Amino acid sequence: MSMWRISWQHGLSSTPSWQICKKIEEMAGTAVTVSESTENIVEFTFTDHSRFLAVLDYLSFVAEGRIVDVSDQVFSSHLGGKIAIHPKIDLNDRATLSHVYTPGVAQVCEAICDKEDRVYSYTMKKNTVAVVTDGTAVLGLGNIGPKAALPVMEGKAILFKALADIDSFPICLDTVETEEIVHIIKAISPGIGGINLEDIAAPRCFIIEEKLKQELNIPVFHDDQHGTAVVVLAGLLNALKIVGKSLTELKVVISGVGAAGVACGQMLRESGVENIIGVGRKGAIYRGGDFGRINELWFAKHTNPENLKGTISDVIDGADLFIGVSAPNLLSIDDVKKMNRDPIVFALANPIPEIEPVAAAPHVRIMATGRSDFPNQINNVLAFPGIFRGALDCRATEINQAMKLAAARAIAEVISEQELNENYIIPDVFNPDVVKKVRDAVIKAAHDTNVSRLDKGWETSLQRSW
Amino acid sequence: MSMWRISWQHGLSSTPSWQICKKIEEMAGTAVTVSESTENIVEFTFTDHSRFLAVLDYLSFVAEGRIVDVSDQVFSSHLGGKIAIHPKIDLNDRATLSHVYTPGVAQVCEAICDKEDRVYSYTMKKNTVAVVTDGTAVLGLGNIGPKAALPVMEGKAILFKALADIDSFPICLDTVETEEIVHIIKAISPGIGGINLEDIAAPRCFIIEEKLKQELNIPVFHDDQHGTAVVVLAGLLNALKIVGKSLTELKVVISGVGAAGVACGQMLRESGVENIIGVGRKGAIYRGGDFGRINELWFAKHTNPENLKGTISDVIDGADLFIGVSAPNLLSIDDVKKMNRDPIVFALANPIPEIEPVAAAPHVRIMATGRSDFPNQINNVLAFPGIFRGALDCRATEINQAMKLAAARAIAEVISEQELNENYIIPDVFNPDVVKKVRDAVIKAAHDTNVSRLDKGWETSLQRSW
Repeated sequence: MSMWRISWQHGLSSTPSWQICKKIEEMAGTAVTVSESTENIVEFTFTDHSRFLAVLDYLSFVAEGRIVDVSDQVFSSHLGGKIAIHPKIDLNDRATLSHVYTPGVAQVCEAICDKEDRVYSYTMKKNTVAVVTDGTAVLGLGNIGPKAALPVMEGKAILFKALADIDSFPICLDTVETEEIVHIIKAISPGIGGINLEDIAAPRCFIIEEKLKQELNIPVFHDDQHGTAVVVLAGLLNALKIVGKSLTELKVVISGVGAAGVACGQMLRESGVENIIGVGRKGAIYRGGDFGRINELWFAKHTNPENLKGTISDVIDGADLFIGVSAPNLLSIDDVKKMNRDPIVFALANPIPEIEPVAAAPHVRIMATGRSDFPNQINNVLAFPGIFRGALDCRATEINQAMKLAAARAIAEVISEQELNENYIIPDVFNPDVVKKVRDAVIKAAHDTNVSRLDKGWETSLQRSW
Repeated sequence: MSMWRISWQHGLSSTPSWQICKKIEEMAGTAVTVSESTENIVEFTFTDHSRFLAVLDYLSFVAEGRIVDVSDQVFSSHLGGKIAIHPKIDLNDRATLSHVYTPGVAQVCEAICDKEDRVYSYTMKKNTVAVVTDGTAVLGLGNIGPKAALPVMEGKAILFKALADIDSFPICLDTVETEEIVHIIKAISPGIGGINLEDIAAPRCFIIEEKLKQELNIPVFHDDQHGTAVVVLAGLLNALKIVGKSLTELKVVISGVGAAGVACGQMLRESGVENIIGVGRKGAIYRGGDFGRINELWFAKHTNPENLKGTISDVIDGADLFIGVSAPNLLSIDDVKKMNRDPIVFALANPIPEIEPVAAAPHVRIMATGRSDFPNQINNVLAFPGIFRGALDCRATEINQAMKLAAARAIAEVISEQELNENYIIPDVFNPDVVKKVRDAVIKAAHDTNVSRLDKGWETSLQRSW
């Protein structure tokens, strides 16, 4: 039987806390055990998770006491939210107040009004990324709405800060209209250095990103698409070193033709892969079929040179690489057996991959998943922090394909030839080299494609003191 | 001759920094002195402020070195922005990553999806205020646009955090359309606990606030209106104790009929003041005159019982209180001499008041300004932190007139009868009692007017451990 526990310290004020304990006993019914210990700490024990949550809801609303411990680590780490905004300057006296607020601040406002680019020098803009969602495609949960999506966006903000020292805040939108979302993001952009689109359902995510890229002169990046594609390419580049194949000779089957599937297809195609087949719920996408959605149209137009039809099993003969960004258990052992020599399988559906890694192991040469408990985790945490760090540091006007390709190569290169093996094709998310190398590569690519705002001569001075 | 100085530490990398020094000498022309000192610190001295700013712009873009000191305290404190976003949880290992991000976070998303109000327990929402502006009425600078407005909004965020532990972030909007602004703020509201409207020009500010109050169930507060009005009322309540008059018997002249003027008029009227005369650029506002703007219409409908016309000088006979929220030097000594016994003058135009305080002193009983270098500073920093702290802590659905009146009384009551005198009618902005007392009063008023989301029985448990 599972048990949950809340330790709560009362008595921080003179109010009798027995009222609260009584209320909690009422809420928790018979399933609660209350035991008093030292320092006014009361412990509540539950055998029912929903009662545990109800009491946690209540206590998080009560300011008198303080929750000191919660046995459920996940809910515990979310109480009160995961991010906070901090002043960089201690405000303790009138002199400081007059510098950071009126009257002093007026001089800074005038300097920016005078020369708009100074917003990068004297405000938060140059280090700020908004993580924007409409809550329609959150993790594997689907359309759960903007409020329920917020914990994911706060998690993303933590990753931005912890890995790349970027100040990021969530914007959870109460609208699912494409035009409205574009309009709102444009309107809030003056104080923001970059836009990370997150968990927006296809096909709207494609249109929103495309329009914003055209209309804004700050980086816009839909992580579910490009983050995944960058890390897939990174893993593939290293896998190919092991199996001794080149990108141009590959046959690739992509299961899942949504946001991530299209982005992977596009990135592979731009890297030189010629034979890609996308398989969706309607089967393989081919020219002349009944495919009307923007993502399907891309596959129909640019992939499947032999115009194959049917299921994964029907098209996987001789494939060198399977990429799954779809759903559990769509790839069978028999399918894998039909692949070319040294098959590479990236089964990225989370938490249950397209094929069970242990069962697949004897039949594949290189296997990667989205999970941290197997080797070779394809995790977009490897991509977005360094990509945005680079884009912000050179004040890039966009994140283009060259920058993404450079990021993929940089991630792959973190692993030396000596280290490289079937179970180590992709670096760990906490490897500190990743962000640095990705950042430098992204800045160089931004220069080369003329989307950096730096003068040409400045690049040598762009080394960052971390 | 004024001098500005930048100390810059180079050599944090292997890149030769003489390139940068040379570039700076070029940019600064003849006016710069470069002197090398220890620890690779170079000092640049300028006699020209615009050259000084140009070099500061450049150096703030160069990541190789580090600006260690800038003689201009105002610009120095703004370099790189004034606020940052911090995780509340250290992210150092995979276990923590799996709690704050996938896969753990999915449980929290589902819990919120299940019961929407849990967004207050497990996200940043309950402690977050967005400071929203369109940059059209910034300080005394007017319509300087959203980018140039950002330093003020960041300053406000510092005040929210330093004084009331509220996490606040700026949203600077690239639109001045009333309906669009309403629409955008509604759309971004799911993750936000309260909206502080800031520096939006009249008459749009009235309409935007009114619509948002109707359509959102979180607090919305236009600080330029209500913050000022609350602190004016607080100061007045204490001033009246000294002169021995009551609100109902006062004659009040308000110079300035914009956002702050209307809010002061409304608050005084709801507190019992019957005789108020608003004077704008067209003179006193009276029934039957040519007044079409929403703010003028309010004055025409609700004030000026004797229907007086003309300038301040024409209407100030026998006034007990002058409130200036207008422009420098609009009130003369002769005007003050026409006022009733014990005249009270709140000359709040910044930085130059409606009347020079030292010249006015012999003729007024109680004088207040918006400045920190004279006694009795009417500063809305006294109001908004505590008002939002209270509104957030009881999860109020709005900030209503009762809550604002309660806040004004609470600010006034911070000064004891023993302390009260002509030069001390309003507490210092750093007085730690202010936020606490305002918060408690606001929560009580929210309860009494049924806009608190707390159960009735919970109020005793709302004491906050600061």
